[in-house]
Amino acid sequence: MKGLWLENQQLQLRTDIPVPEPQLGEALVRVLRAGICNTDLELKRGYYPYTGILGHEFVGVVEQGPENLINQRVVGEINAACGHCRFCLRGQPTHCENRTVLGIVNRHGAFADYLCLPVKNLHPVPDNVSTDVATFTEPLAAALEIQRQVVVCPDDCVLVVGDGKLGQLVAQTLALTNCQLLVVGRHPEKLANLAGRGIKTGLVDAVTDKAFDISVDCTGNAEGFAIARRALRPRGTLVMKSTYAGNLSLDASSLVVDEITLIGSRCGPFSAALELLAAEKVDVKPLIHAHYPLIEGLTAFAEAQRRGVLKVLLDMSKV
Amino acid sequence: MKGLWLENQQLQLRTDIPVPEPQLGEALVRVLRAGICNTDLELKRGYYPYTGILGHEFVGVVEQGPENLINQRVVGEINAACGHCRFCLRGQPTHCENRTVLGIVNRHGAFADYLCLPVKNLHPVPDNVSTDVATFTEPLAAALEIQRQVVVCPDDCVLVVGDGKLGQLVAQTLALTNCQLLVVGRHPEKLANLAGRGIKTGLVDAVTDKAFDISVDCTGNAEGFAIARRALRPRGTLVMKSTYAGNLSLDASSLVVDEITLIGSRCGPFSAALELLAAEKVDVKPLIHAHYPLIEGLTAFAEAQRRGVLKVLLDMSKV
Repeated sequence: MKGLWLENQQLQLRTDIPVPEPQLGEALVRVLRAGICNTDLELKRGYYPYTGILGHEFVGVVEQGPENLINQRVVGEINAACGHCRFCLRGQPTHCENRTVLGIVNRHGAFADYLCLPVKNLHPVPDNVSTDVATFTEPLAAALEIQRQVVVCPDDCVLVVGDGKLGQLVAQTLALTNCQLLVVGRHPEKLANLAGRGIKTGLVDAVTDKAFDISVDCTGNAEGFAIARRALRPRGTLVMKSTYAGNLSLDASSLVVDEITLIGSRCGPFSAALELLAAEKVDVKPLIHAHYPLIEGLTAFAEAQRRGVLKVLLDMSKV
Repeated sequence: MKGLWLENQQLQLRTDIPVPEPQLGEALVRVLRAGICNTDLELKRGYYPYTGILGHEFVGVVEQGPENLINQRVVGEINAACGHCRFCLRGQPTHCENRTVLGIVNRHGAFADYLCLPVKNLHPVPDNVSTDVATFTEPLAAALEIQRQVVVCPDDCVLVVGDGKLGQLVAQTLALTNCQLLVVGRHPEKLANLAGRGIKTGLVDAVTDKAFDISVDCTGNAEGFAIARRALRPRGTLVMKSTYAGNLSLDASSLVVDEITLIGSRCGPFSAALELLAAEKVDVKPLIHAHYPLIEGLTAFAEAQRRGVLKVLLDMSKV
């Protein structure tokens, strides 16, 4: 089968990859659509050593697996947990210490004709959710994780830093809480997406210091973090929603004096994300920049890395 | 009057300081005893620019103020709040944006014959609490702040890093929750204080990685922070209980992947601290290293800076 293979920070289109064989408890999924995420770009830059097929945002059709899922469109949670380590036993499978992660840690990913995942990771896609839209389930679930970690009240002043793909999803999910929301970024055309949905937006220099109860850094860079930090009132909470390339240098004493909370946030609830998509409470269509066939995957990656580009999708039905 | 005066990182004993005049709402307090804290040592090293009399841990006697407090022994909360800024109005006077802080920010401190503080900052010392013991009210309150910020359950595995003055108080207050507590440090003789109270202790290399729900860094240095970080399981909480000299370099991505919470922790509840001292639930006497008269304040500072030394007290009754 075809697949986009990463090795020593080199991405190549391979056509000689064997179709994977599902292990006990796994399903074989034919990939329909897959999204390129910033984590994929970071992996290519060497943020974390990984060799194999990239990709973790996908929609596919089950070809081998339990009868009730055969020929169903599905999305899949990306952490494959062992089920018996201390973190699995305490109900934290996304933190399983033996986990593999689709296209990220020791498990071939979704930028290919086929992938395998444990059956229990799969969620059927509701009929009224298109394949393009369902490809956003994974990042939308990650955005929803924030609200499982931090109580967001309607009175709270909340800042989202970053107008990229993740920032847009985070902003749309936070807007549903009716909090006092401001989203800042550097791209007026991206912010316009959100402004069109009634969300208050501004450029990054519009942020008032010490004015927010909660801030979310969706940029993954030191400048974005600094803006999110400065914006917080004492006892405020900064959610780190993006991975960072390299270390951050932090004024730790100011965190102590202002009693700031920092919280890292990663994978979230798929079922809640699918519900929001089915109810059309979040609009992901304006985030789609382009579709490419898998065989043009390298071009798709180059496009996804261009400044200002939102979501690039690989469409396996295209040739 | 006499006082230990800091200016341009030089500490000097001055004898020409006028006795302060209480402002509206303030009391004049004759200082009986004062403790030298790591923050005092850091201020002398230039961690934060401050000019004036140092010192914020004290017991004194009210000489001018409301009748019911005259001649009473008191301790005092160190943040003098304006009462009308947005943080005061939301019930966070320790974060008042116009605050002065005793011996730290724009308010002369306790290493002197007299000090002034707002009457509302003062707490009478129960008769059965000695003046030496009551001098620990401020740092004990700071230790208790942890439990106002983080829920500590009996099942939780909790690590305290640091066996100094603050670490010992934090350990004793956390032990009252019946959590699974381990305190690590580099000084077997200091750890023995805690072991004698039935608290489990060890040297810093005894810490198991990813084993703790909560860790508290009481060292204020990068090594202590690193130990506290490594010890946390995914979704664990690291309490930063000490100010840090300079910036910390942080692997921010690992905080995201492990969904770690960092929380800065500063001043805490005086009344709860006094209750613990009155009920003898915390034993601070083994933490007292030496007493010095105020006129030997510079010697006292030199002693407090020596490695392995716990609390050095200035005793104003000594000459």
